Amino acid sequence: MNTTCEIGCECERIEQMIRHTLWSSGAKGFVVGISGGVDSALAAALCARAVGGERVMGIALPSPVTPEEDLKDGADLCAAFDIPFLTIPIEPMLSAFAGMEHFEKTPYLSGNLMARIRMTTLYYHANRLHYLVCGTSNRSEYMLGYCTKHGDNAADIQPILHCYKTRVFALAEEVGVPAAIIEKPPSAGLWPGQSDEAEIGFAYKEIDSALASLEAHDWTASNAQEELILGKVQASMHKRMDPPNLLKNP
Amino acid sequence: MNTTCEIGCECERIEQMIRHTLWSSGAKGFVVGISGGVDSALAAALCARAVGGERVMGIALPSPVTPEEDLKDGADLCAAFDIPFLTIPIEPMLSAFAGMEHFEKTPYLSGNLMARIRMTTLYYHANRLHYLVCGTSNRSEYMLGYCTKHGDNAADIQPILHCYKTRVFALAEEVGVPAAIIEKPPSAGLWPGQSDEAEIGFAYKEIDSALASLEAHDWTASNAQEELILGKVQASMHKRMDPPNLLKNP
Repeated sequence: MNTTCEIGCECERIEQMIRHTLWSSGAKGFVVGISGGVDSALAAALCARAVGGERVMGIALPSPVTPEEDLKDGADLCAAFDIPFLTIPIEPMLSAFAGMEHFEKTPYLSGNLMARIRMTTLYYHANRLHYLVCGTSNRSEYMLGYCTKHGDNAADIQPILHCYKTRVFALAEEVGVPAAIIEKPPSAGLWPGQSDEAEIGFAYKEIDSALASLEAHDWTASNAQEELILGKVQASMHKRMDPPNLLKNP
Repeated sequence: MNTTCEIGCECERIEQMIRHTLWSSGAKGFVVGISGGVDSALAAALCARAVGGERVMGIALPSPVTPEEDLKDGADLCAAFDIPFLTIPIEPMLSAFAGMEHFEKTPYLSGNLMARIRMTTLYYHANRLHYLVCGTSNRSEYMLGYCTKHGDNAADIQPILHCYKTRVFALAEEVGVPAAIIEKPPSAGLWPGQSDEAEIGFAYKEIDSALASLEAHDWTASNAQEELILGKVQASMHKRMDPPNLLKNP
């Protein structure tokens, strides 16, 4: 099987799952948070291919540090796939939280707060339109726990959760995501100049091959890099599990 | 085994789980949202008994429709268990969201929005203090889906998730939750005069016996009431499951 065909089949398989989820839920479409990055671009494009762009609502949620360029790239993406596009700045919500007693501003606290404000906003519009929220998490960030619990990882469907980041790029190219989005360095966008790879400490190519090797070898690390990656997987376990409870032993 | 002893053992079993979760997480304590109702009162009391009131932070999150009485009951509960108590009104956040384009105000949209604003606020303070968020969901509302996804059901630990609501009352009495809290009619508190039982359409006694019977008979309904309850369990399945994804078939 050649690579092009394999990737094309993969897109069809994901689109099938998207259609099935929508039809069995009774909802009318999908809300997707559009960051200007490749994950949300791919997720939105796959939704549009699966159910038609008119059943998708792309929402950009810029903070005061979001570059103009990301908004433009998001708008271009939505235009290319006939997806209605809305921009909801989150500055007013951020300011309201900043007025709380004991508020302090650190990158960690603000990053998590922004992710949860964005989730809340996406669900507000999904509830209003009787849509589902489409998540945009990929397998690399999911396994590393590089996400905010009940924030960017909270959704009603996760169509690209099984795709490593390197695979996301390949699929994005296949479906025709604009080059400007594919070529920019991956960033969570929480502060100016933030870079996923600098923050995590490895290139996605290294992360993905370490994760694949760890999975293939029953989570036994075979070198120092895999050891470090395994540590991140273990420390973020709670983000992938149900919260501890006694339901299994009532 | 007599009932008093059984209930006492049950409390110890839950407290053990709470201690274990805290210690294995490396966090320093628990944040609990205090509504003035019996679920959050019991969850907070069990946390205080398990790890000491000084390692618990009770946070009331009143909206403009929250009765003064609920705030007073929450403060009394925290005082009784030596739990520091903070009040963070959510009106400023609600107003910020209300300024969004396309905002409309319906009980459904506002109820979900308030639940997610409260979750975001609890997590902000938990992140700030290096605490975990303790959930206050009970088994009756969990099975019926009587909750907001990624809102009141989002937490790092769910110590009373295995307890039907009728059991919650018994445990609350056992640990010494003030009578004012135990005696008030259960309410999600999303609008004035809201009553869980009126909204769900059954008394908790009926709900709990129907759920227990359904579980014991492999989810086969044996009367019209069980049929209706089963319908609610089925319709809310998505609130208890991982979002659809292809991770199991990468």
